[in-house]
Amino acid sequence: MSNETFSFRTDLADERRDLYKKSNNMQEVGGVKTEEEQFNENIKKIKVEILDEEGEKALRKPKGVYVTIDINNLKAAQEKEIEEAATCLSKEIKELIKKHINEKSEILVVGLGNEYVTPDALGPKVITDIDVTRHILHYMPQCLDENTRSVSAISPGVLGTTGIETVEILKGIVENIKPKLIIAIDALASRNINRISKTIQLSDTGIVPGAGVGNKRNEISIDTLNVPVIAIGVPTVVDLATITDDCLDIFIGKLQEKGESNDNLNKLKEEDNYEEIKEALIPDDYNMIVTPKEIDDLIVNMSSVVARGINMSLQN
Amino acid sequence: MSNETFSFRTDLADERRDLYKKSNNMQEVGGVKTEEEQFNENIKKIKVEILDEEGEKALRKPKGVYVTIDINNLKAAQEKEIEEAATCLSKEIKELIKKHINEKSEILVVGLGNEYVTPDALGPKVITDIDVTRHILHYMPQCLDENTRSVSAISPGVLGTTGIETVEILKGIVENIKPKLIIAIDALASRNINRISKTIQLSDTGIVPGAGVGNKRNEISIDTLNVPVIAIGVPTVVDLATITDDCLDIFIGKLQEKGESNDNLNKLKEEDNYEEIKEALIPDDYNMIVTPKEIDDLIVNMSSVVARGINMSLQN
Amino acid sequence: MSNETFSFRTDLADERRDLYKKSNNMQEVGGVKTEEEQFNENIKKIKVEILDEEGEKALRKPKGVYVTIDINNLKAAQEKEIEEAATCLSKEIKELIKKHINEKSEILVVGLGNEYVTPDALGPKVITDIDVTRHILHYMPQCLDENTRSVSAISPGVLGTTGIETVEILKGIVENIKPKLIIAIDALASRNINRISKTIQLSDTGIVPGAGVGNKRNEISIDTLNVPVIAIGVPTVVDLATITDDCLDIFIGKLQEKGESNDNLNKLKEEDNYEEIKEALIPDDYNMIVTPKEIDDLIVNMSSVVARGINMSLQN
Amino acid sequence: MSNETFSFRTDLADERRDLYKKSNNMQEVGGVKTEEEQFNENIKKIKVEILDEEGEKALRKPKGVYVTIDINNLKAAQEKEIEEAATCLSKEIKELIKKHINEKSEILVVGLGNEYVTPDALGPKVITDIDVTRHILHYMPQCLDENTRSVSAISPGVLGTTGIETVEILKGIVENIKPKLIIAIDALASRNINRISKTIQLSDTGIVPGAGVGNKRNEISIDTLNVPVIAIGVPTVVDLATITDDCLDIFIGKLQEKGESNDNLNKLKEEDNYEEIKEALIPDDYNMIVTPKEIDDLIVNMSSVVARGINMSLQN
Repeated sequence: MSNETFSFRTDLADERRDLYKKSNNMQEVGGVKTEEEQFNENIKKIKVEILDEEGEKALRKPKGVYVTIDINNLKAAQEKEIEEAATCLSKEIKELIKKHINEKSEILVVGLGNEYVTPDALGPKVITDIDVTRHILHYMPQCLDENTRSVSAISPGVLGTTGIETVEILKGIVENIKPKLIIAIDALASRNINRISKTIQLSDTGIVPGAGVGNKRNEISIDTLNVPVIAIGVPTVVDLATITDDCLDIFIGKLQEKGESNDNLNKLKEEDNYEEIKEALIPDDYNMIVTPKEIDDLIVNMSSVVARGINMSLQN
Repeated sequence: MSNETFSFRTDLADERRDLYKKSNNMQEVGGVKTEEEQFNENIKKIKVEILDEEGEKALRKPKGVYVTIDINNLKAAQEKEIEEAATCLSKEIKELIKKHINEKSEILVVGLGNEYVTPDALGPKVITDIDVTRHILHYMPQCLDENTRSVSAISPGVLGTTGIETVEILKGIVENIKPKLIIAIDALASRNINRISKTIQLSDTGIVPGAGVGNKRNEISIDTLNVPVIAIGVPTVVDLATITDDCLDIFIGKLQEKGESNDNLNKLKEEDNYEEIKEALIPDDYNMIVTPKEIDDLIVNMSSVVARGINMSLQN
Repeated sequence: MSNETFSFRTDLADERRDLYKKSNNMQEVGGVKTEEEQFNENIKKIKVEILDEEGEKALRKPKGVYVTIDINNLKAAQEKEIEEAATCLSKEIKELIKKHINEKSEILVVGLGNEYVTPDALGPKVITDIDVTRHILHYMPQCLDENTRSVSAISPGVLGTTGIETVEILKGIVENIKPKLIIAIDALASRNINRISKTIQLSDTGIVPGAGVGNKRNEISIDTLNVPVIAIGVPTVVDLATITDDCLDIFIGKLQEKGESNDNLNKLKEEDNYEEIKEALIPDDYNMIVTPKEIDDLIVNMSSVVARGINMSLQN
Repeated sequence: MSNETFSFRTDLADERRDLYKKSNNMQEVGGVKTEEEQFNENIKKIKVEILDEEGEKALRKPKGVYVTIDINNLKAAQEKEIEEAATCLSKEIKELIKKHINEKSEILVVGLGNEYVTPDALGPKVITDIDVTRHILHYMPQCLDENTRSVSAISPGVLGTTGIETVEILKGIVENIKPKLIIAIDALASRNINRISKTIQLSDTGIVPGAGVGNKRNEISIDTLNVPVIAIGVPTVVDLATITDDCLDIFIGKLQEKGESNDNLNKLKEEDNYEEIKEALIPDDYNMIVTPKEIDDLIVNMSSVVARGINMSLQN
């Protein structure tokens, strides 16, 4: 199976790795290093490191570290579980920061997304809970420990409500306040319903707002902003079209298992041409998403985990 | 095809009528009267009246009037479109009220649903915009025209956050303040993705909160509250399971059209046993819903239409 | 000084006691028992018990227990301080509950106030965090420990938006679901700017919504509802008129200290007739309140303290 | 009376003019031109133009146009009143824009303030309702009329939550997207309780966020951003300290009218030294503000007026 025509349908590096290994009957993908760790009963951590061009080509993602943290039962999470997840997250952020800058270098935290669209509001919500210190270091340095890192935070809004590409807004701010590293938080439109509001993805290779649109020019990364960008992404919705694709794939798979296989089904599945069915099923005037009914509560808990995780990682 | 085993998969009387007619190759269903009216370019009105037992049996809904108002492009609706939709709605409500009580009889407006769950917040949002007069008539009658109808309004919350069945809460209030009619507003889990946030359903046969659960004892209707109940329902979400059922139905239909028909597929479709696929597809720890990404804005516009429509209908 | 003409200008029993003692040069007020306890560095507890008619007459409040909990620096409270304040509160609630009902008797928690008016939203916000069990005990008792107390919760809204007196709404609910005790939470219009968002008042003598209006018929108490009512009140605003009174009192006091005393000033102060000044100062078309600028955050923290305090006190 | 020691205690140009005229027994202030217009029954417009240095010196404000629009009874404003106020506002904005740029020049609208603090949320709320066109002109120009002006909009947050001076954020954005004019909206801490939520102030001389702090470096104006800035300010609160000053001024005035005048009172009033009283009255750990209880609703109505007024003024 040629890599060129292989469609991953997922942005998570660990899922790509699994799919690639399965398709190619491998034990591990060349140029890729993976570590798994069960942080505690509820939290699992998978670190996929893409080491070189071979790994880049296989998983079609740039060199760098990709960590996913899976959290069970976040919907009913209490103070204790939230604190544990935040602690786990903070360790990973800390390690990624250390790779790029020293302990006192200024950091800008950016909350991507539209706070008035519930499943997209994660980034702006996190920003409201970030412990900013930049202005205190400037106007009242005596109030803070002398080793305090300078932290600032902003929610730049989204293209649809500002009329401005997020990267344009950030460029100006970065040029003026000169942070040494950016942490960008975004709610993702996931490809996998099982990851919704359960997974936090971390990488140091940047982020594209409105994931999937994939416009290099609008990337929030070292290429566009000249400072390293740690991206923290949380899947909160899945496109309905993705789900129906999966649904039909599973269905055809089941038919074939039961000996209903025939050339037509094979062709259908391979060509991925369920367009006709999707057209019949999905109204085209709205952007249909799949999300847990409990999304409002999940966003609150997830924001708390991410904000605390970041706060813990930024100061000693 | 026997009515007993026929599954409507929709709560809208006009859709049931269409399905029944199609299945039975009829021009009109016996015991059912239907009127359609294009209110204006964007708004269509369909009134289905179930006249007798024959109609009740066919559509499996109690005798009464069922009006659906379909509104185009509510997402981008401006003041003018909202006002027009409200005007159309108010006429229908007024007519339904007149069937049951006189012009001055006290009305209680009830907003069902959980205001902290975005797609379920319609009812409580409407309540905040209802022009209540009961307390003014009591404490400062001189401030109002002498023909003012007494109007009160309440959002009783949902079972999950109160621990009390909504009908139990309403029973007590109705016994104490003795309204002559109730108007209950609810966001519905629709069966049809095309109706989401485009349709307002009106009937005078009551409502079951958390639609579909179908518990007679918890019905909000004249049977449980001893006063007539006008129900205003707006579909805002569809269960993901319903969508996948539809998706597979369409798929098998397409296969069969193309001559792929076989007994197995027929059986699959008839028995409606996609359980296996749904189990593989849908995580069981969350309640997965399908909704437009723009649901926050849609709820705001729809609340405005419903609240204004009710306000216009209550006073002369 | 005659008690009849003495104006307390405060609803807090401990402040009334202080004022009464001072005015009458007493060590303690007859028929009143007081205990003070420093719970920890930040939290102080004062329990005033009115024992008999003599105490009732002096403080002009019904027999019963009045506890005030003063919390320092709630604005910047972190998890630890919130937990401590909740623990302190829960002990007092537990003791008050024990006086009236046994460990398993059903409790209804009522959140008074208008959630859409920031300083009045405390009650409704608390309700969203109450652990309700009544419906689980009813539908899925196997999910809970057999000693779980039945707890339900409701936000009945306010007269201005429902058109119905809160006590009328509660009467109906109480008659239908028959709780053995009510806990009612309300944001108070305080008389003392120093208590704003720092004090939680507890008593077992009920509450009058929209404090100060003082309409016996609308009291939420055992007299109107036939079950004991524990009231939890938190001062969040002060009327501007109260502040200007205090301001002028202090000013005249200062003038007099400095020998500026004269009969006219004495008369002014005694007659409490600053009406002219207030008319010149305060526009009459709005209801002017004084509140901390940080009121949104304070309400969030205070809600968290009260909700956790209640939850801890209700189950073993 | 020397201008040097004269304290205006108001930021409104028309009030300064009134005070200056009264103090100096003049008919009109030199270098100042004033026009009044009753727009309709509920809306009055006052335009104060500071023409030259003489006017600048007298009113201590830079040369430019200052318009105040006073709106009656905004609390209960319905669609019609909101539309009228917006229309009135749009005319004034349009005229100010025309003074500086041509019909198609790009405009950036900036919403100052903290959206999570109710009386400070006006600016961010307005931004959510601005009709932005910049991105559509860029990606889908065919969807818009060719004369459409490019409009973008941003809520930069406040120093306390971002750690960055607002002007620093705006500098970067202005340098990157190069608008020709900025419209900045801010909720003001007014000096006059009668203006709260009734007045909209317009000027083309810029704005200082967190009014009163008065730091030239942080001004949002042509001096710092190199493009003209139209400021739209709405008073939503008054500092409690300002009110108590006014209260005592009025009180002493009344005493003096009644012949209670004496040197001490005169001195008190002149020296403006009520510090002692304020210390005794106002707790120093919170920032006490005076605001209408109905502030949440007022902000909603006022946002609607300002957003519509801006939208109407930006396109033909």
